[in-house]
Amino acid sequence: MIKFSFDALKGFTKNIFLAMACDTSHAELASEVLLAADMRGVDSHGVARLIGYVRLWENARINSQPQIRVIHETPSTTVVDGDRGLGLVVAPKAMEIAIQKANKVGTGWVAIKNSNHFGIAGYHAMMALQHDMIGMAMTNASPLVAPTFSTEKLLGTNPIAVAIPAQKEPAFVADFATTTAANGKLEILQRKQESAPLGWVQTLEGLPSTNPGELKQGGALLPLGGDREHGSHKGYCLGSIVDIFSAILSGANYGPWVPPFVSFLPVADDPVGEGIGHFVGAMRIDAFRPADEFKKHMDNWIQRFRGAKAVNDRERVYIPGDPERISEEIRRKEGISLLPAVVNDLRLLGEKFGLDLSPD
Amino acid sequence: MIKFSFDALKGFTKNIFLAMACDTSHAELASEVLLAADMRGVDSHGVARLIGYVRLWENARINSQPQIRVIHETPSTTVVDGDRGLGLVVAPKAMEIAIQKANKVGTGWVAIKNSNHFGIAGYHAMMALQHDMIGMAMTNASPLVAPTFSTEKLLGTNPIAVAIPAQKEPAFVADFATTTAANGKLEILQRKQESAPLGWVQTLEGLPSTNPGELKQGGALLPLGGDREHGSHKGYCLGSIVDIFSAILSGANYGPWVPPFVSFLPVADDPVGEGIGHFVGAMRIDAFRPADEFKKHMDNWIQRFRGAKAVNDRERVYIPGDPERISEEIRRKEGISLLPAVVNDLRLLGEKFGLDLSPD
Repeated sequence: MIKFSFDALKGFTKNIFLAMACDTSHAELASEVLLAADMRGVDSHGVARLIGYVRLWENARINSQPQIRVIHETPSTTVVDGDRGLGLVVAPKAMEIAIQKANKVGTGWVAIKNSNHFGIAGYHAMMALQHDMIGMAMTNASPLVAPTFSTEKLLGTNPIAVAIPAQKEPAFVADFATTTAANGKLEILQRKQESAPLGWVQTLEGLPSTNPGELKQGGALLPLGGDREHGSHKGYCLGSIVDIFSAILSGANYGPWVPPFVSFLPVADDPVGEGIGHFVGAMRIDAFRPADEFKKHMDNWIQRFRGAKAVNDRERVYIPGDPERISEEIRRKEGISLLPAVVNDLRLLGEKFGLDLSPD
Repeated sequence: MIKFSFDALKGFTKNIFLAMACDTSHAELASEVLLAADMRGVDSHGVARLIGYVRLWENARINSQPQIRVIHETPSTTVVDGDRGLGLVVAPKAMEIAIQKANKVGTGWVAIKNSNHFGIAGYHAMMALQHDMIGMAMTNASPLVAPTFSTEKLLGTNPIAVAIPAQKEPAFVADFATTTAANGKLEILQRKQESAPLGWVQTLEGLPSTNPGELKQGGALLPLGGDREHGSHKGYCLGSIVDIFSAILSGANYGPWVPPFVSFLPVADDPVGEGIGHFVGAMRIDAFRPADEFKKHMDNWIQRFRGAKAVNDRERVYIPGDPERISEEIRRKEGISLLPAVVNDLRLLGEKFGLDLSPD
């Protein structure tokens, strides 16, 4: 592992986006969203993906100078066309609209089409917190997941994030893929040559497997629950709801038609929409009850759950968002450690664009 | 099993609610919601619960003549005080408000406090379908579920329902508890003296268990995912979001303070709110894109998923809502079969109120 400061990685990332001809404000925003993943310990969605965005841009599948447009609206809803822009830029812009709507009529809901991978869902949901609002964000993604009883990969890992403000306690921030385990965890097991628990993946034939490399052999990730007996039909429901809200409300591609993140895989030749889709929302707390009252009860909720009796001395009960906040505190002090393979990708990018990547 | 016609059970149930001094329109609505569960194959939430509602009413924990009131609103949000009424009545009234709001500003969101058990979440969500809207409904419930790494029961089975209209295809209707398995399934295993799969329950000490009677011995149900390795922290997130949306937005009791459904268990002596809470919502499809366009793509989504390659010849891929709709078609023709214990409870109620329960 090679350690970098936040500022060094952020500056480098911003310069890469500038080299892709992004506007300064877009480059700033995109690098902030990407670095938020590294800071919060979601390493699979941070600078490790930077080279992927660059390759999509080189293949003309990302437009670095998008005209992000509102194409339909009502007092509480909006549909946004992302103009093939970076999801890292399109999603925060859409979230700003949701927050404006919520300010006016209590809640705001924005469906987005013609976008690309938006980084961590939690970043966008958390934008609502400073406005005393609950934030939500979800996105569809390229198909890696088989519905219950199927061998076909029809859904992405389709994450959902919900951020809820508290008073003295840090906010409640849930941010999770609707699969048993994220693809990034399988990649780590492959590198370590370890096996995966049952319920994470299945073979090409739909049989249970502990091989973390099963995806490469035509297998599939499994919806949260793992198998029917353990509720995989519920994970399949969740992933489907994310797909429909993100893409059918907006006019993006859905299900098996969602374009892949990796540039070496082709897009479907019979698209059913434009790009990938997101869905974000904001609800003003005081559209329901006084914000202070709500936040005091959130403190009480959080304290009761965090103080719950643990199964043993080694474990404790976490509040959603705790692990990511702890990671952020540590990394802000100690820097961000990257795998050699990731550093290598970044150095390749640096050479391509004539940019230096130094640890500080 | 003893078979009854829909009309016989519906009429009997309505008469019981009338005997509880419900208004005619409330008795009609409550019996319709309860019977919807029996028809859709969710036997645990149908007439099997009727005696439970009566006992809560006898204990003055249900008000059969509630003044359901709007206590706060914005153009897209409302908070409703259910006045300790039947959730079976309060929730559909709240959903009507959500639909009215959606008609005006695109979406409508209603948080409800001071309510009781609302039957199946799916019924309320499905009310939106005839208006070309997406419907959502969730509720908190008495604490039976331990958060990941805890031995304490702090959450209910906290279900979520989402109903989405299609054109030629039947609607997509997801309706599921945020636990690995519903409590009703454990009761069936106990009666059959069979063991439960690992991941459904844990012991008083928080250890894995296959004993379906574990709840009676101080154990707990587990969040969807079952254990940390299989994503139980995600089920815990979902159950928590339902709890917070239903109760902290509205001012109801949350977490371990939620009053129990069974009348022989006491309510908390330090309540943090009033009654139990629900959260319902409606989104007008054409607040995003023309309804016909949306519904055609929903048909395409449904057909693609339903036609997906199955793992073997004995299975097929279901669309959320398929199993319940199939049950409804069969039961409408063949009647509803009830367990002798349920029939016995109904006959006791009949004797109490001087009402006959006949099969036809």
